[in-house]
Order: sequence, then C-alpha cells, then structure tokens
Amino acid sequence: MALLGCGVVGSQVVRLLHEQAADLEARIGAPVELKGVAVRRLDAPREVEIPADLLTTDATALVARDDVDIVVEVIGGIEPARGLILSALENGASVVTANKALLAEDGATLFATAEKAGRDLYYEAAVAGAIPILRPLRDSLAGDKVTKVIGIVNGTTNYILDKMDTYGAGFTEALAEAQELGYAEADPTADVEAFDAAAKAAILASLAFHTKVVGTDVHREGITDVTAADVASAKAMGCVVKLLAIVELKDGAVSARVHPAMIPREHPLASVRDAYNAVFVEAESAGQLMFYGRGAGGDPTASAVLGDLVTVARNLVAQTQSVAASSYADRAILPMGQTVTRYHVAIDVEDRAGVLATIASAFAEHGVSIQTMRQEGRDDEAQLVVVSHDATDAQLAATVEHLRNLDVVRDVTSVMRVEGMNG
Amino acid sequence: MALLGCGVVGSQVVRLLHEQAADLEARIGAPVELKGVAVRRLDAPREVEIPADLLTTDATALVARDDVDIVVEVIGGIEPARGLILSALENGASVVTANKALLAEDGATLFATAEKAGRDLYYEAAVAGAIPILRPLRDSLAGDKVTKVIGIVNGTTNYILDKMDTYGAGFTEALAEAQELGYAEADPTADVEAFDAAAKAAILASLAFHTKVVGTDVHREGITDVTAADVASAKAMGCVVKLLAIVELKDGAVSARVHPAMIPREHPLASVRDAYNAVFVEAESAGQLMFYGRGAGGDPTASAVLGDLVTVARNLVAQTQSVAASSYADRAILPMGQTVTRYHVAIDVEDRAGVLATIASAFAEHGVSIQTMRQEGRDDEAQLVVVSHDATDAQLAATVEHLRNLDVVRDVTSVMRVEGMNG
Repeated sequence: MALLGCGVVGSQVVRLLHEQAADLEARIGAPVELKGVAVRRLDAPREVEIPADLLTTDATALVARDDVDIVVEVIGGIEPARGLILSALENGASVVTANKALLAEDGATLFATAEKAGRDLYYEAAVAGAIPILRPLRDSLAGDKVTKVIGIVNGTTNYILDKMDTYGAGFTEALAEAQELGYAEADPTADVEAFDAAAKAAILASLAFHTKVVGTDVHREGITDVTAADVASAKAMGCVVKLLAIVELKDGAVSARVHPAMIPREHPLASVRDAYNAVFVEAESAGQLMFYGRGAGGDPTASAVLGDLVTVARNLVAQTQSVAASSYADRAILPMGQTVTRYHVAIDVEDRAGVLATIASAFAEHGVSIQTMRQEGRDDEAQLVVVSHDATDAQLAATVEHLRNLDVVRDVTSVMRVEGMNG
Repeated sequence: MALLGCGVVGSQVVRLLHEQAADLEARIGAPVELKGVAVRRLDAPREVEIPADLLTTDATALVARDDVDIVVEVIGGIEPARGLILSALENGASVVTANKALLAEDGATLFATAEKAGRDLYYEAAVAGAIPILRPLRDSLAGDKVTKVIGIVNGTTNYILDKMDTYGAGFTEALAEAQELGYAEADPTADVEAFDAAAKAAILASLAFHTKVVGTDVHREGITDVTAADVASAKAMGCVVKLLAIVELKDGAVSARVHPAMIPREHPLASVRDAYNAVFVEAESAGQLMFYGRGAGGDPTASAVLGDLVTVARNLVAQTQSVAASSYADRAILPMGQTVTRYHVAIDVEDRAGVLATIASAFAEHGVSIQTMRQEGRDDEAQLVVVSHDATDAQLAATVEHLRNLDVVRDVTSVMRVEGMNG
C-alpha cells in the first residue's frame, strides 16, 4: 500500500500499521507492506519515524507504481487528492480515503471510476471519525427505509456549544478555549461556519437515501451567531443548543441542512458532550438507533482508516470486491424554504395590553400555529418566548420578518430552530 | 429465498419483503423471490397473509430445493435449526439467521461449513436486534484492537431493572408488569437468568477478539436476586443497576461474563431506558464507542435480517462472497475467579466501637483495598456500605464470605459488582 499525506492522521496510520502488523496480517491473510509515503516536505517534523527511502514528494509516481495495490489518501482538500485517487483507481489500486470535502463535492466521479476499474473505494473515516456509521447505513440498514438522520458530526462546534451550555460562556470565549486546547484551528471557519458538517451531511444523505447529494445541496448555517442568551433561553425550556446535520426524506425528496438547533435534554443527542460525535438514525422498521464516539483526532480517524484498509485488503486477497453503495434513486433536493421545521423565537416587546394578541396574529397570518408562548416581564418591557408548531421554514422566516416590523416589538433577540420535540 | 419460521420476526420479514420489493430489487440488482415458508402448523394464525402454496411443513425439503439460493432461519433454538442451516449451506445456499442460541453453542461448525461451501453466513439480528453491532465489530474495527465490550443486550431485563430504578418496584412486581406488557414471556427464565445475554456475550467476544467463545464459557448470573434495596443502595451512590454482558481481553485471555452491576449515572450505558439495548465498545485507537437502539421485537429484528439478506443477495448477484470473520486467535478463557472486578457490599453491623476496623481488616486480609466506606447509623445497628478497589473476583468473593462469618456482622444485605467507575 501507499500512503498519501502524513499529518495527524497519516502518522497514526503508520504507527498502527507497525504496531498491529501481526494482527493485521492474521486478519487479512497477507502482510501489509508500506511501499511509500507521499509528503509535501521530506524534512518536516513527524510524530512517527519513517524510513527515509519510503518518503517521497512525488505522489503521482507513487500511485502509479505497479506494486501499489492499495492507496490510503489522508491529504484532504480537493486537489491534488482527487487527481491522485482517480489515478490510483485507474491504475488498479483500491482506495481508502478520509476526504469528506472531496466526497461531498465529487463523490459520484470517484464512485463511477472505482466501479469501472472494479476496485474498492472506502471512506468510513470521512464522517464521524471512528464511529462506524457509513457501513451500518450502507449495509446493515440496506433492507430498511431510513427516514431521517440527525448527526452531531463536528467535534469543534460541539465542544464550543457544550462549554457555552455548561459555563454560560459566550461564543468568542468558548472558541478561544477550544483553540487553546487544540479542538479548534487557528482559522476555525470550516468548523464554525459548518462547511465541514455540511460535507458530512451530503455524504450521509447520499448513503441513507440511495441518491446523490453534494455539499452545495445542503442548507448551511454555522454557530457564530449563537449567543449566550440563545443558550440560556434553550436551558429555560429544558433544551440544549447543538449544531445538527439533519437529512430527511419527505415525499421522496431529500432535505439536507446543517444549523444550530435546540433539542430537549432527554433526547439521546443532548447528552453528547465535549468534542464527541453521535449520529441518530430513524428507520421505519429498526426504529431509533444511535451511534456515538470520538469524531476526530489522529487515533480515532486512523482506526477507521485501518478498518477500511483491512476490508479492501481482504477483498484483494480473496480476489473479490465489495458491492458499491447504491444510488439508484434520483431524488430531488427540497429547498430549505419548503423544509418543515419549528422555531423558537424570543422577542422583547412593550409591556402593554394587546401585545400578545398582536404577536399571535402575526404568527396566524403566516399560517404558523403556536405550541407555547411564555411571557417574562421585566421593568417596562416584557420578554415573550414563542415556540411554534411545525411549519415550512419559509412561513417561519416570514413570520420572524413580520415580527421585526411590528411597532410593539423592540427586538427579536433569539431565533432558533427546534428539533426532536414532540407535540 | 426460503424462510424457516414465521413467528413474530418471520411474519415481519414477509411483510417487508412485500412492501419493500421495489427498493430491495434496486439495491440488490435482482428481485427477491420468496419460494417457500416452512412452518410448524399450516393453519396457525399469522400476522401476515402468505399464499397457501408457499407454506410447507417440510423444512428439510425446502432448504434442499435447487431454486433456493438464500435461506433465512428465524425458528430459533438448536434443532432443527442447526441441521437445516447446515443442509442449506451444503446445498449451496447462503444463510441469514437470528439464532443466538445456536451461534453461541456451535457457531464454529456453522462458520466452517459456510466457508467450505463458499457461501455467506450472516447473523446481525442475533445480537441487539436492529442495532448494527456485529458488522462494526467484524469490519469497521478490524484495524483496531478492541479491549472491552460492555452491552445491555437483553431488553426484558433492562425493562425490569429500569422500572425498579424509576419506581422503586421489587423484582417480582416489575417482572409481572413486563409480562403484562409483552416485554417478558410467561416463562421468563431465558431472560431473567441471563441465558439469552450469555449467548450474546459469547458471540460478541468471538467477534471482538477473533477467537472462539461459546455460551458455556460465559460466567452467568441473572437478575432474580436483585432487590429493591440493591437498587436503592446503587441510587444512593449515584449509580443504576443494569444487567451487563462484559467481555474483555486481559493479557491475551478472554474474560466473558453476564451479571447485574452498578454503573455510574453519567456512564453512557446508564441512560439506556425501557427495553432498549446498547453496546459500549472500547478500542485502543477508536476510544469509546456506543451503539444504541431497539434490541428486540418483530420489526427491528426483521430490519436486521433484511440488511443481511441484501448483503448476501448482492454477493450472489456479483458472484462473490464476503470474507468470513476471522478467528485466528486461539485464546484462553479466564475463569471468573481470576477476572478483575470491584464490589459494592452493604453490611448490617452492630453499632459499637471497633466495627469499622474489623470490617476493614477483613478486606485487607484478602488483599482487597477499599475505595469508599460509608456508615449510616439506625437505632442500635448501623449499615456500612463499602466499595472496593479492583481485585480478582475470587478475592472479593472470599472477602464477602469472611464478612458473613464475623460476629459484628448481622447480615450482608447487598453484594453487587460495580462497573465503569474510575479511581
């Protein structure tokens, strides 16, 4: 095999290949020989010792070698990863990758190339690190009808929101702590703006609903606007704020979105703390399932990569290949406006007679019915907290816009979707 | 395909085959044709309508038919299931089974027969119903080193213990409620005496540690002796009582046991309520993982069966087969006495000077150190609650025996192992 990239994940892959050599050989039926490691700089410091003759900066030549039958790609990003994976497959190698961005952007090309070449393409590490979720969706639930998947698939944002919930910290403060502890990068955009989670949502939706969903199909809202007040408001109604990747099937169409949402504390996802990940699946016959574990980090990701490596290596020994994930259903993508959601809205209103009626009318005018309305007076103004029933996101957004323009409304202080709540 | 058995699970399999026919055909690449259903009585009432010409009482003839290439066995029990599965494999059919008892007793023969015949043998439904756990252990974690698996794998006992915890009910009362609601059978022995959980523990240990473990290798204690006092005592120390199937690797040997144990309420397994199941896995690189869902019932079990059916059918279409689970490691079974555990012991003692010292000496004499000792006085006697540090089960059992014989001890009122606690 050849390894492309030797950063946090790659170096753990090398370490495990070495430490587990005997076990891997027994499980595969043949030894795994590392033929080369493609890196950007030969002299970069690494967490693992690699014989100098294995290191190369020429990844293209490495994947073209005749004696490389498996390529593990942990470079990340679109290029050169895409070109290298395609070359590897065309050269007859099976591929294991952890590259969620690439899979979310152009998975279809990769799968088609793998199928044409008669080779395996595995990518368990791309979503939720070490948590086995892709295989269960692809294989274990293949005889069931998955209706919805809700995931906490980004550890950085879960860490930040958990600290905001636990200590009442603000977003900036919690982000700074996450950066200090290495949970967030210096440039946290991919995480906090939910690009990472959106890519994973696309991969989950494709597998769950046997169709093609790309990253840009996913409605995306990050957590930078989540305030300590939002978190406190969630707490007051027995909820916690999480960044959720939600993919669901509605009348044959796919709705895919990533946004912060309040979920009740008794929901299994509410107890996912720190940088942990979890994926909650609803299927017609299986009912509710949850998969929980560490979603990132060198070791857990390397574990997922090695699991895939064993599968493709065993297939090579047995001269077989795995049957690819099916994408027979060509499903439409439901626009966010048509997706059915539910809003929590906190409003600062003037404390005078008739205010409640005015607010309630605004909801009614947009066809949105109200589940609960709670008033908290303070001084000359009052805080109204409204939780709606299910409505389309467009109806709800129009309601909020309407509220902002009402004379009696001083400010709409918190708007957030609510998930996992009955009634 | 042919179906053996048409009870709670079988009838749901038939229903799903019918309802999902188009999806299954798309996922497999060929339609699934039900060629026959073997039943004990042709005229028994069933939850699903089956054409009369498909029903047969001659299961042996059914599995021998040339046009049957997949056999789904949901009869349960050892015979005739074993003979039928072996015949099916020898006749060239792939097999999907939910039969934990048979797998735990004689899985090795089944696997060897499947391998010799070049056919698939899948059994996801045998452990934890719809929760995909066998595939993750077998495939996803194949590149990692699983060190411990702790499962709540029996829904009936979890329901009973949950009610005891929630309402302070006694065992008999909670069992009666479970029977009324259909969670427990009229003869609850297999569940409450943990035979069911022990079979599942054997299957989990075999997969997790790549070796052969049978049901009788598993140390087994049921929940019939768990009292309301035990549950209350657990509560007082922030714990909950669960029936746990625990398999772990110690110096290359396998320890496999099923017994009630106290676990801290913050442990992910503590929040598994009602008849739900969950399996908690510790692996060297992946860290802690948990799989959660419905562990029994017709629908969830049928979902797992259908998932396996799709895999073996796709393999048939592709003229391939899955690589079997490896059992290259021939590991010793660690006797329960040598397994390292930790005890919670509640003792009624005479309330006089020197009692604590006497009790502490008894622990010390057997080499068991004490983590916490709590005294609760009442009238002329006192209740002492001791939680030990890790020690071998033999040391701990000897300590308890010793305590019972002390003059100052009136009664040892609760003895239970403690799991998932640090320190």
